[in-house]
Amino acid sequence: MITIHGDPISGNCQKAKWTAERLAIPFRWVDVDVVRAKTRTPEFLALNPAGQVPIVVLDDGRVLAQSNAIILHLAEGSALIPADAYDRAKMYEWLFWEQYSHEPYIAVARFQMRYLGKPRSEVDAKIIQRGEAALGLLNDRLDGREFLVGAGLTLADIALVAYTRMAADGGFSLSDYPAVEAWVGRVETELPIRDPR
Amino acid sequence: MITIHGDPISGNCQKAKWTAERLAIPFRWVDVDVVRAKTRTPEFLALNPAGQVPIVVLDDGRVLAQSNAIILHLAEGSALIPADAYDRAKMYEWLFWEQYSHEPYIAVARFQMRYLGKPRSEVDAKIIQRGEAALGLLNDRLDGREFLVGAGLTLADIALVAYTRMAADGGFSLSDYPAVEAWVGRVETELPIRDPR
Repeated sequence: MITIHGDPISGNCQKAKWTAERLAIPFRWVDVDVVRAKTRTPEFLALNPAGQVPIVVLDDGRVLAQSNAIILHLAEGSALIPADAYDRAKMYEWLFWEQYSHEPYIAVARFQMRYLGKPRSEVDAKIIQRGEAALGLLNDRLDGREFLVGAGLTLADIALVAYTRMAADGGFSLSDYPAVEAWVGRVETELPIRDPR
Repeated sequence: MITIHGDPISGNCQKAKWTAERLAIPFRWVDVDVVRAKTRTPEFLALNPAGQVPIVVLDDGRVLAQSNAIILHLAEGSALIPADAYDRAKMYEWLFWEQYSHEPYIAVARFQMRYLGKPRSEVDAKIIQRGEAALGLLNDRLDGREFLVGAGLTLADIALVAYTRMAADGGFSLSDYPAVEAWVGRVETELPIRDPR
C-alpha cells in the first residue's frame, strides 16, 4: 500500500488524497505539520530533499514528490487523464499554470492570513493582484464550460480546485467570479470533496 | 507545420525549440519580444490569455502554452519520456520542481540583472538564497549521475538545463556546483545546444 505524507490543511496534499480516493487506490496517510516545520526535519529531508509535502512512498519504498507529479502517476491509465493528445496537453498546461501562476498567489495569501495571522493589508500587493488575475483567467475559461478540459473531470480540475475553493481564506471573493464559483461546486460534488473549505 | 512563438532570450522558449530540433519536428519560429511587452498586446493575449511565451500553434490552429506542457506534448512516444512508470513520474516531479522552485529564482535573478540592469545587491535576498538552494539540490542529485532521471537524456534535463546554464547572468557561480557544471556540459553536447549562454 502507498503512503501519502501530507498536511491535512494543504491543498497540494489534498490533491493526492482526492485522486487516490476517486480511483479507489488504498493508501495510508501520515500527518506532517508544515506550520511546525516538520518538513524540515532530518528525517523528512531524507525522504524529500526539497522539504515539501505531499510525498508518496510507494510499496517498494521509492519516493515521489510534487503534488501534480503524484496525481499524474496515480491517475495513469484512468479517465482523469484525457485520451485525446491535445486535451491531455491542455491538462498539462493547466497543471503547470496552477503551480506557476495560481498557487503562489492564492495559496500563499491564504497561508499568510489564515495560518500566520497577517491582516490582508500586510499581504504583498503583488500577491493579491496576481491572485485576482488568476481567478479572472479561470473565470473566462470556465464561462460556458463544465470542466477545465474536455467534457469531464480531469486532473486539471483536481489541481485547480484545491486552493481555489479556499480562496476566501486569502481575502478573495469567489462571488466576483461566478463561473469559478459554480465550477467549484460541481467539482466538490463530482469528486466528492468532504474537506471543509 | 507547428509554429513556436517565443523570445530567443527566454530559456522557457528555448526548451520548446530544443525539443523540436532533437526530435526532428519541423517548426516555424515567431519572435515575441518579452522586454518590449509583446506578450501583452491584444493580438498575443487572444492566443494566450496568460500573456506568457512560449506558445505553440498546431497545424489546425489550436494553441498550447506552458513550456513544460509543450515539451511533454512534442515528445510523446519518444525516448525523451522514460518508458518506466516510476522514472516517468520522477521526470514529472523535476518538471514541476523546475517551475516552482528553480525558475522563479534562477531565471528571475538573471532577468533582473541582465535585462533590467539591476545590480545583484538590489535583487531580493530571498531570490538569491532560494536560487542557491535550488542549485545545491540539483548538485546533490547529479553527484554520481549522468542525467537527472534514468540512464539517458529526458525532458527533465531539457527543462532544468535551460536556465541553469545561464545562472551566471543572475550572479550564481556554477563552479560552486561541480556536478551541475559537468551535467550542463553533457546536456549541451547531447542535445546539442547552440545558443550562447
